[in-house]
Amino acid sequence: MRALLFDGELKVADLPAPRPARDEVLLRVERAGVCATDLEITRGYMNFRGTLGHEFVGVVTEGGGELAGRRVVAEINCVCGKCDMCTRGLAPHCRRRTVIGIDGHPGAFAEYVAVPVRNCHPIPDGVSDDEAVFAEPLAAAFQILRQVKIEPRDRAMVLGSGRLGLLVAQVVARTGCRLCVVGRNPRTLEWLDRRGITAMAAGDLRGGFDQDLAIDCTGAPEGLELAMRMTRPRGTIVMKTTCRPGPPVDLAPLVVNEITLVGSRCGPFPDALAALARREIEVASLITSRVPLSKGTEALALAARPDQIKVLILPQA
Amino acid sequence: MRALLFDGELKVADLPAPRPARDEVLLRVERAGVCATDLEITRGYMNFRGTLGHEFVGVVTEGGGELAGRRVVAEINCVCGKCDMCTRGLAPHCRRRTVIGIDGHPGAFAEYVAVPVRNCHPIPDGVSDDEAVFAEPLAAAFQILRQVKIEPRDRAMVLGSGRLGLLVAQVVARTGCRLCVVGRNPRTLEWLDRRGITAMAAGDLRGGFDQDLAIDCTGAPEGLELAMRMTRPRGTIVMKTTCRPGPPVDLAPLVVNEITLVGSRCGPFPDALAALARREIEVASLITSRVPLSKGTEALALAARPDQIKVLILPQA
Repeated sequence: MRALLFDGELKVADLPAPRPARDEVLLRVERAGVCATDLEITRGYMNFRGTLGHEFVGVVTEGGGELAGRRVVAEINCVCGKCDMCTRGLAPHCRRRTVIGIDGHPGAFAEYVAVPVRNCHPIPDGVSDDEAVFAEPLAAAFQILRQVKIEPRDRAMVLGSGRLGLLVAQVVARTGCRLCVVGRNPRTLEWLDRRGITAMAAGDLRGGFDQDLAIDCTGAPEGLELAMRMTRPRGTIVMKTTCRPGPPVDLAPLVVNEITLVGSRCGPFPDALAALARREIEVASLITSRVPLSKGTEALALAARPDQIKVLILPQA
Repeated sequence: MRALLFDGELKVADLPAPRPARDEVLLRVERAGVCATDLEITRGYMNFRGTLGHEFVGVVTEGGGELAGRRVVAEINCVCGKCDMCTRGLAPHCRRRTVIGIDGHPGAFAEYVAVPVRNCHPIPDGVSDDEAVFAEPLAAAFQILRQVKIEPRDRAMVLGSGRLGLLVAQVVARTGCRLCVVGRNPRTLEWLDRRGITAMAAGDLRGGFDQDLAIDCTGAPEGLELAMRMTRPRGTIVMKTTCRPGPPVDLAPLVVNEITLVGSRCGPFPDALAALARREIEVASLITSRVPLSKGTEALALAARPDQIKVLILPQA
């Protein structure tokens, strides 16, 4: 089968189809989304070597019992179920986990992918493949609501209006808080504006130290500095950005202003699928390109361009 | 009067005695403690120019009504009482604050210091000047208990066995949690050991990612990296260190492990004074040197040496 590999360089290769283990199902991948993490991996993040891709929709073609033949999305952490994290209800932090397309488990930029059956969530009938492919990053956005209490009176700022920022903004907006999204891309700022979410160009930002909550979705080391500048004393910063270390950051404001900083990673798929089914979150219009898997390297190059939001890879095209 | 000034260089100078404003009292300074922040200021931190010193015991010699003639310690944040922070119960974060000996208010490495009367706390009779001079850093240690809930079952690690680390260790030990202090100075590690607190040389540290709580009192940029390495997924890091930025730090573990990082600064003086009065915290044996104010520059040089713990300056000697 065809797959998009990173082995120090990015290439489309012909690989044997994966053979699912006893606790796995085989999925025919229908859609996969390109994420900033994929781009970071091609720059050395996680030292990952193998097939990329961790946002995807598949159809169960082997194994899965009741799931056979169904459309599913899948959580990306493959866990042992036995370690101290798994037994304490912290399975996404399993000590022995592999992560699909990121760490030790082949990803979904391929015609087929094998994933643990327990990772799969069937896609509700009213949710299209184009929508469901956003389940993984949307779940990561919903994770914020599990970690931080947001009140309607709170002033909250989402930093970054990229792929993740636009999902986080929609999730946070539903709390009814006083939200402002700060970004660089006029196209995505307009997109937010059309949906009634206050958005602002980073260059127009004035003042500071007045937000109850700042959520860093910039994907850049400068994001934390901006968050520290915008957040009030005793306020909260949620950090969604993982990137390689940038220039030295002065962290003294965290101490002086007694900020609480909350690292936030993967989230609840059921919340994401339910919100898509209720049509509370708009995702399909974020798709800016569709690229067949045979041109996968071009898909990643395209995803790095500022005029793109979500680039999909189509493995069956 | 004599005072220890920093104006780009550190020097003892002769200054006019301060004249207290209407809401201030004049204190004759009996003892003052040298803190890592004083050393950082002489290296450029806060761009402070003026008389240093923010840990002190004084006797009220002018103003203060009922406080006249009494021994007091004083909180270091001088606040407006009117801004959004003050009216929200966050006075230590007053938007217009000055900070005694740190930011815009002359400090207590002087024969006399003027401080707001509302900052003063009378020292209980059973607490000596040598003990009360620790009220400010001990209050900062107690602040941790106001911010983070520590359970007896929790594994907690204090990083750093310097001036602040030894106070934090004693405060945290009182929660009954499973505590280990990690430091570099064999003398302070022994001091902890004699008090029944598990202590360990940093070089002997093995493993990692298993502490529910890590408290960074290292005063060094490396402290946060060590804290990230020791803290379990979804664990908490309390950051007490303010220092100038060091080399780039990889903050990705905060996100990947969903760590909560809590910045922590000044704390409740009443808690500190009550603990000293109940003799729950040992401080006097941390004093390693007493230096007259006339040799104030030597006091700061001494405080930078690894064989010293708390160096006192005696303005009336």
